[in-house]
Amino acid sequence: MIMPAAAPAPAQRTASELRRDPLTGMRVIFAPERGARPQDFRQTETTHWKADGCPFCAGHEDATPPAALVIADPDSPDPDAWRVRVVGNKFPAVSPIDPFAEPDPALGSGWRGASRRGEASKGYELFEARSLAGGHEVIIESPYHLSSLCQLDTDHITDLFRAYAARIRYWQTVRGVEYISIFKNVGAAAGASLLHSHSQLIATEAIPKQVQAIGDRLAHHWASSGCCLQCDILRGELSEGRRVIAKSDHFVAYCPFAGRVPYLIRVVPRVHADRFEEAADEVLADLAQLTHRLVGWLERIQQPSAYNYTLHTRPLTAACSESFHWWMELFPRTTTFAGFEWASDCFINPLLPETAARHFRELARRDDPLQQRMTPHDFSR
Amino acid sequence: MIMPAAAPAPAQRTASELRRDPLTGMRVIFAPERGARPQDFRQTETTHWKADGCPFCAGHEDATPPAALVIADPDSPDPDAWRVRVVGNKFPAVSPIDPFAEPDPALGSGWRGASRRGEASKGYELFEARSLAGGHEVIIESPYHLSSLCQLDTDHITDLFRAYAARIRYWQTVRGVEYISIFKNVGAAAGASLLHSHSQLIATEAIPKQVQAIGDRLAHHWASSGCCLQCDILRGELSEGRRVIAKSDHFVAYCPFAGRVPYLIRVVPRVHADRFEEAADEVLADLAQLTHRLVGWLERIQQPSAYNYTLHTRPLTAACSESFHWWMELFPRTTTFAGFEWASDCFINPLLPETAARHFRELARRDDPLQQRMTPHDFSR
Repeated sequence: MIMPAAAPAPAQRTASELRRDPLTGMRVIFAPERGARPQDFRQTETTHWKADGCPFCAGHEDATPPAALVIADPDSPDPDAWRVRVVGNKFPAVSPIDPFAEPDPALGSGWRGASRRGEASKGYELFEARSLAGGHEVIIESPYHLSSLCQLDTDHITDLFRAYAARIRYWQTVRGVEYISIFKNVGAAAGASLLHSHSQLIATEAIPKQVQAIGDRLAHHWASSGCCLQCDILRGELSEGRRVIAKSDHFVAYCPFAGRVPYLIRVVPRVHADRFEEAADEVLADLAQLTHRLVGWLERIQQPSAYNYTLHTRPLTAACSESFHWWMELFPRTTTFAGFEWASDCFINPLLPETAARHFRELARRDDPLQQRMTPHDFSR
Repeated sequence: MIMPAAAPAPAQRTASELRRDPLTGMRVIFAPERGARPQDFRQTETTHWKADGCPFCAGHEDATPPAALVIADPDSPDPDAWRVRVVGNKFPAVSPIDPFAEPDPALGSGWRGASRRGEASKGYELFEARSLAGGHEVIIESPYHLSSLCQLDTDHITDLFRAYAARIRYWQTVRGVEYISIFKNVGAAAGASLLHSHSQLIATEAIPKQVQAIGDRLAHHWASSGCCLQCDILRGELSEGRRVIAKSDHFVAYCPFAGRVPYLIRVVPRVHADRFEEAADEVLADLAQLTHRLVGWLERIQQPSAYNYTLHTRPLTAACSESFHWWMELFPRTTTFAGFEWASDCFINPLLPETAARHFRELARRDDPLQQRMTPHDFSR
């Protein structure tokens, strides 16, 4: 699955190690020897290239709910032509928020026991549930039946990021919303169901435990040291240099020290900023250029490509208001969550981030003749 | 992927709900509407049916490390004939424990900072790692190139479970081991790399956070109520009945109230017992019969089948010695961990366990004419 041409010789170290991610607190087992194991299976992905019936293509706007946001195509003489279009997901993960709705008699808006526990003890519900409303939107990235973000120019990707920011700002005003997630799934192995290039937004009334835990870590570090944890990690990565893969005016991209999966990339703004959605246009344009490049690398690492990216902006809780530092993660789907991970919630990663970073820097050198003059030293500081 | 023939009409409820798993404490979003979304992709799995080169087949014993355990075939006149064979994994997730090894100078046996954090603050390591030793074994389930557990008779599966128990008991005696995981990955989508029917054991020096957290929940419930949490949940499931799918002399199988994935099955001993590896032969034989049946259902729900099962026995920590109650989980791979799950660590499950349980009970009725006389009421109490 990994193109051998792109892979330098494997690292010398073969002993397994356990690492702790300083940002998330999650532990990961690195097992470089597992990368070499034989494979009986070959998974292939068949795509229905049915642009005709695609609900996301221009001309099929009536196949989706009405648009919540449309970014017009400035280059088209047609005033209705669009570049990016945001619509409600017809198959939502959360029920639509309806401000006029009566509470569900079976499930209130708070946690509620769905049945009584055994009689042996009291005052405690075993089966707890609550209704979950919010929003689930699809961000259609092009009027054409394109499958890759790399087929868009960076102006267009900037517009896509503007659409993310606008929808996050909208959902922040909706009463009850506590968490807003922006993510992109590409390829069936990454959980996508449609080919036409798109991202998604899910806004929920409840904040996930892990998101809360990361916010708490950032807040704790801020309170105890007076520094931002993300800024401290970034300084550490830049000073060490081995895991840094790209730098732009406003961002640094690196393979995190304890990434849960091979080739995980974290993109972090150089300047402390809690919210993606408040980034200036110039910052979004810079991110668009960098994302175009990183996705290109992911597509070269694996063919056909399956990857995800996720945007981590400040959740709407007060505790981490000044300590939060937003970031983005990208990762190809080269490994599978299996039995061990299920039982332990601890990932086994067969590729050290230092090795992944070397692969990416090799791709960078081939990308761009200018990069060829950069030495590993150029990546530090 | 799901056989329509096996699926009763969808549940009436379409609102999303958030549920909390009483055993694990994990929250899961149930979004029944998402099950109906269209699919552009079709994933197919190609298998190399290369029994000739299979390292797990009888006659190729020299292709694997020496056996740690062999269960002989009592029906064969050949004294070397085996039914189950346990060998070291050639591509281990953890480095082999070597009691004579010097500590790695770069990575001690405890947590150790792999580099200094930024200068802005002190006394705290950002990049922490430790070496991770332990054991990683493959339990080869048959001398023949079989791909399904259902091709084995239940005596043979009982032998397999005896092998699990023996290897768990062995690893408990190895100094430093804190956690022992037994799991089975079937099909590429479930993380398997080889076709020949096999399970795995991973023993590690560190206990995963999630395993510790579940042990703590059980211990806390025991201390606060004087009851076992697992026993309480089991009583609740039996009394409610809607999620129970099979009962045997020693076990109850149900679809947990807040299962993270569609068709998740939890198998729980009826009598409080902390350790799988201390189960009597008669209990293992009963589990073998039940597992054969449940795996048969998983294989009928999805073709080609990809599933995992995991065994959760008491970790080697003292805190939960009397409060722990072992269990087993089985689940087909019908959905994919995607961007939302990555960012939030919260799964979206498009199938309510009550609906999954109805599907399984439908399969049970077709399985066995005796079951046809059972009414839903028979499943309660």
